[in-house]
Amino acid sequence: MISSPKQTSIKVIAFDVFGTVVDWHGSVMHQVETMGLGVDGADFALAWRAGYQPAMAEVMRKGEWVILDTLHRRILDQVLLDFNLDSLQEAERQRLNRVWHRLDPWPDSIEGLTRLKSKFTICTLSNGNIGLLSNMAKRGKLPWDCILSAENFGKYKKHPDTYLGVAKIFDREPAEVMLAAAHHSDLEAARQCGLATAYIERPHEYGQNNPKPTAPWDANDLHARSITHLAQLLEC
Amino acid sequence: MISSPKQTSIKVIAFDVFGTVVDWHGSVMHQVETMGLGVDGADFALAWRAGYQPAMAEVMRKGEWVILDTLHRRILDQVLLDFNLDSLQEAERQRLNRVWHRLDPWPDSIEGLTRLKSKFTICTLSNGNIGLLSNMAKRGKLPWDCILSAENFGKYKKHPDTYLGVAKIFDREPAEVMLAAAHHSDLEAARQCGLATAYIERPHEYGQNNPKPTAPWDANDLHARSITHLAQLLEC
Repeated sequence: MISSPKQTSIKVIAFDVFGTVVDWHGSVMHQVETMGLGVDGADFALAWRAGYQPAMAEVMRKGEWVILDTLHRRILDQVLLDFNLDSLQEAERQRLNRVWHRLDPWPDSIEGLTRLKSKFTICTLSNGNIGLLSNMAKRGKLPWDCILSAENFGKYKKHPDTYLGVAKIFDREPAEVMLAAAHHSDLEAARQCGLATAYIERPHEYGQNNPKPTAPWDANDLHARSITHLAQLLEC
Repeated sequence: MISSPKQTSIKVIAFDVFGTVVDWHGSVMHQVETMGLGVDGADFALAWRAGYQPAMAEVMRKGEWVILDTLHRRILDQVLLDFNLDSLQEAERQRLNRVWHRLDPWPDSIEGLTRLKSKFTICTLSNGNIGLLSNMAKRGKLPWDCILSAENFGKYKKHPDTYLGVAKIFDREPAEVMLAAAHHSDLEAARQCGLATAYIERPHEYGQNNPKPTAPWDANDLHARSITHLAQLLEC
Protein backbone atom coordinates (compact mmCIF):
# COMPACT_ATOMS: atom_id res chain seq x y z
CA MET A 1 0.00 0.00 0.00
CA ILE A 2 2.91 2.45 0.26
CA SER A 3 4.46 1.76 -3.07
CA SER A 4 3.58 5.01 -4.83
CA PRO A 5 6.21 7.77 -4.82
CA LYS A 6 3.57 10.06 -3.35
CA GLN A 7 3.07 8.02 -0.20
CA THR A 8 6.70 7.29 0.46
CA SER A 9 7.39 11.04 0.53
CA ILE A 10 4.93 11.72 3.38
CA LYS A 11 6.57 13.48 6.32
CA VAL A 12 3.61 14.99 8.19
CA ILE A 13 0.17 13.53 8.88
CA ALA A 14 -2.44 16.12 9.87
CA PHE A 15 -5.61 14.76 11.47
CA ASP A 16 -9.10 16.06 11.42
CA VAL A 17 -10.26 15.62 15.01
CA PHE A 18 -14.05 15.76 15.60
CA GLY A 19 -15.36 12.40 14.45
CA THR A 20 -12.00 11.20 13.13
CA VAL A 21 -9.97 10.98 16.36
CA VAL A 22 -12.66 11.55 19.01
CA ASP A 23 -16.28 10.47 19.36
CA TRP A 24 -18.13 13.78 19.65
CA HIS A 25 -21.59 12.21 19.40
CA GLY A 26 -21.13 9.65 22.15
CA SER A 27 -19.32 12.10 24.42
CA VAL A 28 -21.89 14.89 24.11
CA MET A 29 -24.76 12.41 24.46
CA HIS A 30 -23.23 10.98 27.61
CA GLN A 31 -22.65 14.45 29.12
CA VAL A 32 -26.25 15.52 28.44
CA GLU A 33 -27.64 12.30 29.91
CA THR A 34 -25.36 12.57 32.96
CA MET A 35 -26.75 16.06 33.65
CA GLY A 36 -30.25 14.58 33.85
CA LEU A 37 -31.82 17.23 31.65
CA GLY A 38 -34.69 14.95 30.69
CA VAL A 39 -34.01 15.10 26.95
CA ASP A 40 -32.67 12.55 24.49
CA GLY A 41 -28.89 12.94 24.60
CA ALA A 42 -28.39 11.51 21.12
CA ASP A 43 -30.87 13.97 19.59
CA PHE A 44 -29.38 16.84 21.56
CA ALA A 45 -25.88 16.04 20.29
CA LEU A 46 -27.09 15.92 16.68
CA ALA A 47 -28.95 19.23 17.03
CA TRP A 48 -25.88 20.93 18.53
CA ARG A 49 -23.60 19.62 15.81
CA ALA A 50 -26.08 20.65 13.11
CA GLY A 51 -25.32 24.29 13.91
CA TYR A 52 -21.59 23.80 13.38
CA GLN A 53 -21.15 24.24 9.62
CA PRO A 54 -23.58 27.18 9.31
CA ALA A 55 -21.87 28.99 12.21
CA MET A 56 -18.42 28.63 10.62
CA ALA A 57 -19.80 29.64 7.23
CA GLU A 58 -21.12 32.84 8.78
CA VAL A 59 -17.70 33.63 10.32
CA MET A 60 -16.02 33.15 6.96
CA ARG A 61 -18.65 35.32 5.25
CA LYS A 62 -18.22 38.15 7.75
CA GLY A 63 -14.43 37.84 7.73
CA GLU A 64 -14.01 38.48 11.45
CA TRP A 65 -12.43 35.62 13.36
CA VAL A 66 -14.48 33.92 16.10
CA ILE A 67 -13.17 30.79 17.85
CA LEU A 68 -15.18 27.58 17.94
CA ASP A 69 -15.80 27.74 21.71
CA THR A 70 -17.79 30.91 21.10
CA LEU A 71 -19.69 29.38 18.17
CA HIS A 72 -20.48 26.26 20.19
CA ARG A 73 -21.93 28.49 22.90
CA ARG A 74 -24.11 30.48 20.50
CA ILE A 75 -25.49 27.26 19.02
CA LEU A 76 -25.97 25.75 22.46
CA ASP A 77 -28.13 28.66 23.61
CA GLN A 78 -30.40 28.13 20.61
CA VAL A 79 -30.53 24.35 21.08
CA LEU A 80 -31.45 24.79 24.74
CA LEU A 81 -34.37 26.99 23.64
CA ASP A 82 -35.42 24.40 21.06
CA PHE A 83 -35.34 21.64 23.68
CA ASN A 84 -37.29 23.74 26.23
CA LEU A 85 -34.24 23.92 28.50
CA ASP A 86 -33.86 27.68 28.59
CA SER A 87 -33.93 27.65 32.38
CA LEU A 88 -30.44 26.12 32.46
CA GLN A 89 -28.18 28.39 34.52
CA GLU A 90 -25.09 30.18 33.22
CA ALA A 91 -22.59 28.04 35.15
CA GLU A 92 -24.18 24.86 33.78
CA ARG A 93 -24.15 26.25 30.25
CA GLN A 94 -20.46 27.04 30.56
CA ARG A 95 -19.72 23.56 31.88
CA LEU A 96 -21.82 21.92 29.16
CA ASN A 97 -20.19 24.00 26.43
CA ARG A 98 -16.79 22.74 27.48
CA VAL A 99 -17.84 19.14 26.82
CA TRP A 100 -16.15 19.71 23.44
CA HIS A 101 -12.86 19.92 25.38
CA ARG A 102 -13.62 16.54 26.96
CA LEU A 103 -14.48 14.34 23.99
CA ASP A 104 -13.32 10.74 24.30
CA PRO A 105 -10.91 9.26 21.75
CA TRP A 106 -12.11 6.33 19.65
CA PRO A 107 -10.67 3.08 21.08
CA ASP A 108 -7.93 2.83 18.42
CA SER A 109 -6.84 6.50 18.42
CA ILE A 110 -4.10 6.56 21.06
CA GLU A 111 -2.42 3.37 19.86
CA GLY A 112 -2.67 4.36 16.21
CA LEU A 113 -1.30 7.87 16.76
CA THR A 114 1.52 6.57 18.94
CA ARG A 115 2.58 4.16 16.21
CA LEU A 116 2.36 6.81 13.49
CA LYS A 117 4.35 9.25 15.64
CA SER A 118 7.33 6.89 15.52
CA LYS A 119 7.72 7.55 11.79
CA PHE A 120 5.90 10.80 10.99
CA THR A 121 5.23 14.19 12.48
CA ILE A 122 1.61 14.01 13.61
CA CYS A 123 -0.52 17.09 14.20
CA THR A 124 -4.10 18.18 14.38
CA LEU A 125 -5.78 20.22 11.69
CA SER A 126 -9.12 20.94 13.28
CA ASN A 127 -11.65 23.72 13.38
CA GLY A 128 -11.52 23.42 17.17
CA ASN A 129 -9.61 26.28 18.83
CA ILE A 130 -6.13 25.70 20.20
CA GLY A 131 -7.19 25.73 23.86
CA LEU A 132 -9.97 23.22 23.18
CA LEU A 133 -7.61 20.88 21.31
CA SER A 134 -4.92 21.18 24.00
CA ASN A 135 -7.34 20.39 26.81
CA MET A 136 -8.75 17.46 24.83
CA ALA A 137 -5.27 16.08 24.11
CA LYS A 138 -4.16 16.41 27.74
CA ARG A 139 -7.27 14.68 29.08
CA GLY A 140 -7.40 12.04 26.33
CA LYS A 141 -3.63 11.42 26.18
CA LEU A 142 -3.45 12.15 22.46
CA PRO A 143 0.29 12.26 21.64
CA TRP A 144 0.39 15.12 19.09
CA ASP A 145 3.74 16.50 18.01
CA CYS A 146 1.97 19.79 17.45
CA ILE A 147 -1.55 21.16 17.75
CA LEU A 148 -2.64 23.15 14.71
CA SER A 149 -6.05 24.70 14.37
CA ALA A 150 -8.09 26.87 12.06
CA GLU A 151 -7.22 29.48 14.71
CA ASN A 152 -3.59 29.42 13.51
CA PHE A 153 -4.69 30.52 10.08
CA GLY A 154 -7.69 32.72 10.86
CA LYS A 155 -9.71 30.58 8.47
CA TYR A 156 -11.96 27.57 8.96
CA LYS A 157 -11.66 24.45 6.88
CA LYS A 158 -12.21 23.99 4.08
CA HIS A 159 -10.34 27.18 3.22
CA PRO A 160 -7.11 26.35 1.32
CA ASP A 161 -5.04 28.45 3.78
CA THR A 162 -5.61 25.77 6.41
CA TYR A 163 -4.25 22.83 4.38
CA LEU A 164 -1.46 24.83 2.80
CA GLY A 165 -0.71 26.37 6.19
CA VAL A 166 0.26 22.99 7.63
CA ALA A 167 2.77 22.45 4.82
CA LYS A 168 4.16 25.94 5.29
CA ILE A 169 4.57 25.61 9.05
CA PHE A 170 6.62 22.45 8.59
CA ASP A 171 8.47 23.85 5.55
CA ARG A 172 7.22 20.97 3.40
CA GLU A 173 5.67 20.64 -0.02
CA PRO A 174 1.91 20.01 0.09
CA ALA A 175 2.51 16.49 -1.29
CA GLU A 176 4.66 15.72 1.76
CA VAL A 177 1.63 16.27 4.01
CA MET A 178 -1.23 13.79 4.35
CA LEU A 179 -4.63 14.70 5.75
CA ALA A 180 -6.39 11.89 7.61
CA ALA A 181 -10.12 12.42 8.08
CA ALA A 182 -13.44 10.64 8.31
CA HIS A 183 -15.04 13.11 5.91
CA HIS A 184 -14.64 12.93 2.14
CA SER A 185 -15.36 16.65 1.67
CA ASP A 186 -12.45 17.60 3.96
CA LEU A 187 -10.15 15.23 2.08
CA GLU A 188 -11.34 16.53 -1.28
CA ALA A 189 -10.46 20.10 -0.27
CA ALA A 190 -7.04 18.97 0.95
CA ARG A 191 -6.43 17.10 -2.29
CA GLN A 192 -7.19 20.22 -4.31
CA CYS A 193 -4.33 21.87 -2.40
CA GLY A 194 -1.98 19.03 -3.34
CA LEU A 195 -2.03 17.10 -0.06
CA ALA A 196 -2.15 13.31 0.12
CA THR A 197 -5.28 11.93 1.74
CA ALA A 198 -6.30 9.03 3.96
CA TYR A 199 -9.92 8.25 4.73
CA ILE A 200 -10.70 6.80 8.16
CA GLU A 201 -13.95 4.84 8.52
CA ARG A 202 -16.05 6.06 11.45
CA PRO A 203 -19.43 4.48 10.72
CA HIS A 204 -20.87 5.50 14.10
CA GLU A 205 -19.79 9.13 14.09
CA TYR A 206 -23.48 10.13 14.31
CA GLY A 207 -24.38 7.44 16.83
CA GLN A 208 -25.16 3.76 16.83
CA ASN A 209 -28.58 4.40 15.30
CA ASN A 210 -27.30 6.52 12.42
CA PRO A 211 -24.65 4.51 10.60
CA LYS A 212 -22.96 6.57 7.92
CA PRO A 213 -21.72 5.22 4.58
CA THR A 214 -18.00 4.54 4.57
CA ALA A 215 -17.43 3.35 1.02
CA PRO A 216 -13.96 4.04 -0.39
CA TRP A 217 -13.40 6.89 -2.82
CA ASP A 218 -10.80 6.15 -5.45
CA ALA A 219 -9.38 9.65 -5.17
CA ASN A 220 -7.99 8.99 -1.68
CA ASP A 221 -4.46 7.62 -1.40
CA LEU A 222 -5.41 5.38 1.50
CA HIS A 223 -8.60 3.97 3.00
CA ALA A 224 -8.34 2.74 6.58
CA ARG A 225 -10.81 1.10 8.95
CA SER A 226 -9.23 2.87 11.92
CA ILE A 227 -6.12 4.84 12.91
CA THR A 228 -4.37 1.61 13.90
CA HIS A 229 -5.18 0.30 10.42
CA LEU A 230 -3.69 3.49 8.94
CA ALA A 231 -0.53 2.83 10.97
CA GLN A 232 -0.44 -0.69 9.52
CA LEU A 233 -0.91 0.58 5.96
CA LEU A 234 2.01 2.98 6.51
CA GLU A 235 4.14 0.23 8.02
CA CYS A 236 4.33 1.69 11.55
CA MET B 1 6.82 28.41 48.47
CA ILE B 2 3.30 28.04 47.09
CA SER B 3 1.48 29.77 49.92
CA SER B 4 0.52 32.96 48.10
CA PRO B 5 -2.94 33.10 46.50
CA LYS B 6 -1.24 34.09 43.26
CA GLN B 7 0.77 30.91 42.98
CA THR B 8 -1.98 28.53 44.00
CA SER B 9 -4.12 29.86 41.14
CA ILE B 10 -1.59 28.95 38.43
CA LYS B 11 -3.12 26.72 35.73
CA VAL B 12 -0.72 27.15 32.82
CA ILE B 13 3.09 27.41 32.77
CA ALA B 14 4.53 28.88 29.58
CA PHE B 15 8.23 28.34 29.01
CA ASP B 16 10.74 30.42 27.22
CA VAL B 17 12.76 27.87 25.24
CA PHE B 18 16.17 29.07 23.94
CA GLY B 19 18.48 29.02 26.95
CA THR B 20 15.72 28.11 29.41
CA VAL B 21 14.76 24.61 28.21
CA VAL B 22 17.49 23.90 25.66
CA ASP B 23 21.21 24.66 25.46
CA TRP B 24 21.51 26.70 22.26
CA HIS B 25 25.14 27.63 22.85
CA GLY B 26 26.44 24.12 23.42
CA SER B 27 24.33 22.66 20.61
CA VAL B 28 25.36 25.23 17.99
CA MET B 29 29.00 25.05 19.08
CA HIS B 30 28.96 21.27 18.78
CA GLN B 31 27.35 21.38 15.31
CA VAL B 32 29.91 23.90 14.03
CA GLU B 33 32.79 21.87 15.40
CA THR B 34 31.39 18.63 13.98
CA MET B 35 31.28 20.23 10.54
CA GLY B 36 35.03 20.89 10.78
CA LEU B 37 34.79 24.48 9.58
CA GLY B 38 38.04 25.40 11.28
CA VAL B 39 36.55 28.14 13.42
CA ASP B 40 35.88 28.37 17.14
CA GLY B 41 32.42 26.90 17.64
CA ALA B 42 31.79 28.79 20.87
CA ASP B 43 32.59 32.14 19.23
CA PHE B 44 30.52 31.26 16.17
CA ALA B 45 27.50 30.43 18.34
CA LEU B 46 27.80 33.73 20.21
CA ALA B 47 28.12 35.71 16.97
CA TRP B 48 25.06 34.02 15.48
CA ARG B 49 22.98 34.62 18.58
CA ALA B 50 24.12 38.25 18.74
CA GLY B 51 22.11 38.94 15.60
CA TYR B 52 18.90 37.58 17.14
CA GLN B 53 17.47 40.56 19.03
CA PRO B 54 18.30 43.14 16.33
CA ALA B 55 16.70 40.95 13.64
CA MET B 56 13.46 40.60 15.62
CA ALA B 57 13.47 44.30 16.44
CA GLU B 58 13.64 45.06 12.73
CA VAL B 59 10.67 42.78 12.01
CA MET B 60 8.64 44.50 14.69
CA ARG B 61 9.62 47.93 13.35
CA LYS B 62 8.62 47.03 9.80
CA GLY B 63 5.41 45.34 10.92
CA GLU B 64 5.64 42.50 8.39
CA TRP B 65 5.90 39.05 9.90
CA VAL B 66 9.04 36.97 9.22
CA ILE B 67 9.60 33.65 11.00
CA LEU B 68 12.73 32.98 13.02
CA ASP B 69 14.08 30.34 10.60
CA THR B 70 14.35 33.08 8.00
CA LEU B 71 15.99 35.51 10.43
CA HIS B 72 18.46 32.83 11.56
CA ARG B 73 19.42 32.30 7.93
CA ARG B 74 19.95 36.00 7.24
CA ILE B 75 22.16 36.30 10.30
CA LEU B 76 24.01 33.09 9.42
CA ASP B 77 24.93 34.41 5.98
CA GLN B 78 26.49 37.50 7.58
CA VAL B 79 28.29 35.48 10.27
CA LEU B 80 29.75 33.18 7.62
CA LEU B 81 31.12 36.25 5.85
CA ASP B 82 32.55 37.57 9.12
CA PHE B 83 34.25 34.22 9.82
CA ASN B 84 35.63 33.97 6.27
CA LEU B 85 33.40 30.99 5.53
CA ASP B 86 31.50 32.45 2.61
CA SER B 87 32.43 29.46 0.46
CA LEU B 88 30.03 27.26 2.42
CA GLN B 89 27.57 25.69 -0.02
CA GLU B 90 23.81 26.22 0.00
CA ALA B 91 22.95 22.69 1.17
CA GLU B 92 25.37 23.01 4.09
CA ARG B 93 23.96 26.41 5.00
CA GLN B 94 20.46 24.97 5.06
CA ARG B 95 21.55 22.07 7.22
CA LEU B 96 23.47 24.35 9.57
CA ASN B 97 20.56 26.77 9.87
CA ARG B 98 18.35 23.96 11.05
CA VAL B 99 20.63 23.29 14.02
CA TRP B 100 18.14 25.51 15.88
CA HIS B 101 15.60 22.68 15.36
CA ARG B 102 18.06 20.24 16.95
CA LEU B 103 19.04 21.98 20.20
CA ASP B 104 19.60 19.63 23.13
CA PRO B 105 17.52 19.98 26.30
CA TRP B 106 19.35 20.81 29.53
CA PRO B 107 19.76 17.63 31.59
CA ASP B 108 16.85 18.48 33.93
CA SER B 109 14.35 19.67 31.30
CA ILE B 110 12.53 16.46 30.36
CA GLU B 111 12.12 15.27 33.96
CA GLY B 112 11.09 18.72 35.19
CA LEU B 113 8.55 19.27 32.41
CA THR B 114 7.11 15.79 32.84
CA ARG B 115 6.55 16.41 36.54
CA LEU B 116 5.02 19.86 35.96
CA LYS B 117 2.74 18.39 33.27
CA SER B 118 1.09 16.19 35.88
CA LYS B 119 -0.38 19.28 37.58
CA PHE B 120 -0.32 22.12 35.05
CA THR B 121 -0.82 22.74 31.37
CA ILE B 122 2.70 23.29 30.03
CA CYS B 123 3.41 25.09 26.78
CA THR B 124 6.15 26.94 25.00
CA LEU B 125 6.15 30.69 24.54
CA SER B 126 9.14 31.15 22.30
CA ASN B 127 10.23 33.38 19.46
CA GLY B 128 11.09 30.20 17.57
CA ASN B 129 8.61 29.36 14.82
CA ILE B 130 6.09 26.56 15.28
CA GLY B 131 7.86 24.13 12.94
CA LEU B 132 11.19 24.71 14.67
CA LEU B 133 9.67 24.15 18.12
CA SER B 134 7.80 21.02 16.96
CA ASN B 135 10.90 19.46 15.44
CA MET B 136 12.91 20.31 18.56
CA ALA B 137 10.27 18.81 20.85
CA LYS B 138 10.00 15.62 18.78
CA ARG B 139 13.74 15.07 18.69
CA GLY B 140 14.34 16.13 22.29
CA LYS B 141 11.24 14.40 23.74
CA LEU B 142 9.93 17.59 25.31
CA PRO B 143 6.43 16.71 26.53
CA TRP B 144 4.55 19.96 25.77
CA ASP B 145 0.79 20.03 26.05
CA CYS B 146 0.84 22.69 23.38
CA ILE B 147 3.41 24.54 21.30
CA LEU B 148 2.85 28.29 21.22
CA SER B 149 5.12 30.69 19.42
CA ALA B 150 5.47 34.35 18.55
CA GLU B 151 4.22 33.03 15.18
CA ASN B 152 0.78 32.43 16.74
CA PHE B 153 0.50 36.10 17.57
CA GLY B 154 2.40 37.71 14.69
CA LYS B 155 4.52 39.49 17.30
CA TYR B 156 7.87 38.72 18.87
CA LYS B 157 8.43 38.83 22.59
CA LYS B 158 8.48 41.10 24.41
CA HIS B 159 5.28 42.39 22.82
CA PRO B 160 2.37 42.17 25.30
CA ASP B 161 0.24 40.30 22.72
CA THR B 162 2.45 37.25 23.21
CA TYR B 163 2.04 36.97 27.00
CA LEU B 164 -1.62 37.95 26.96
CA GLY B 165 -2.13 35.65 23.98
CA VAL B 166 -1.25 32.59 26.04
CA ALA B 167 -3.87 33.52 28.65
CA LYS B 168 -6.46 34.15 25.95
CA ILE B 169 -5.81 30.85 24.16
CA PHE B 170 -6.41 28.93 27.38
CA ASP B 171 -9.31 31.17 28.43
CA ARG B 172 -7.50 32.10 31.63
CA GLU B 173 -6.77 35.32 33.49
CA PRO B 174 -3.15 36.51 33.06
CA ALA B 175 -2.53 35.79 36.76
CA GLU B 176 -3.41 32.13 36.13
CA VAL B 177 -0.46 31.86 33.73
CA MET B 178 3.17 31.69 34.83
CA LEU B 179 6.09 32.42 32.55
CA ALA B 180 9.24 30.43 33.29
CA ALA B 181 12.41 31.86 31.76
CA ALA B 182 16.14 32.27 32.26
CA HIS B 183 15.94 35.95 31.32
CA HIS B 184 14.81 38.68 33.68
CA SER B 185 13.77 41.01 30.86
CA ASP B 186 11.33 38.42 29.47
CA LEU B 187 9.88 37.87 32.95
CA GLU B 188 9.60 41.61 33.56
CA ALA B 189 7.59 42.04 30.37
CA ALA B 190 5.31 39.13 31.34
CA ARG B 191 4.82 40.61 34.81
CA GLN B 192 3.72 43.90 33.32
CA CYS B 193 0.95 41.94 31.58
CA GLY B 194 -0.14 40.43 34.90
CA LEU B 195 1.46 36.98 34.54
CA ALA B 196 3.20 35.20 37.41
CA THR B 197 6.92 34.62 36.85
CA ALA B 198 9.53 31.99 37.64
CA TYR B 199 13.22 32.56 37.00
CA ILE B 200 15.29 29.52 36.00
CA GLU B 201 19.04 29.72 36.59
CA ARG B 202 21.06 28.84 33.50
CA PRO B 203 24.51 30.12 34.39
CA HIS B 204 26.12 28.49 31.33
CA GLU B 205 23.65 29.70 28.72
CA TYR B 206 26.51 31.52 26.96
CA GLY B 207 29.01 28.70 27.43
CA GLN B 208 31.23 27.35 30.18
CA ASN B 209 33.63 30.27 29.76
CA ASN B 210 30.97 32.97 30.02
CA PRO B 211 29.04 32.40 33.25
CA LYS B 212 26.09 34.74 33.52
CA PRO B 213 24.82 36.24 36.78
CA THR B 214 21.82 34.39 38.18
CA ALA B 215 21.02 36.44 41.27
CA PRO B 216 17.35 36.41 42.31
CA TRP B 217 15.13 39.37 41.57
CA ASP B 218 12.54 40.00 44.26
CA ALA B 219 9.89 40.78 41.66
CA ASN B 220 9.75 37.14 40.50
CA ASP B 221 7.29 34.83 42.23
CA LEU B 222 9.71 31.92 42.12
CA HIS B 223 13.46 31.46 41.66
CA ALA B 224 14.56 27.96 40.66
CA ARG B 225 17.94 26.40 40.03
CA SER B 226 16.50 24.18 37.30
CA ILE B 227 13.17 22.97 35.90
CA THR B 228 13.20 20.01 38.29
CA HIS B 229 13.68 22.51 41.11
CA LEU B 230 10.70 24.49 39.77
CA ALA B 231 8.67 21.26 39.87
CA GLN B 232 9.73 20.78 43.49
CA LEU B 233 8.79 24.37 44.40
CA LEU B 234 5.37 23.80 42.86
CA GLU B 235 4.98 20.46 44.65
CA CYS B 236 4.99 18.28 41.56
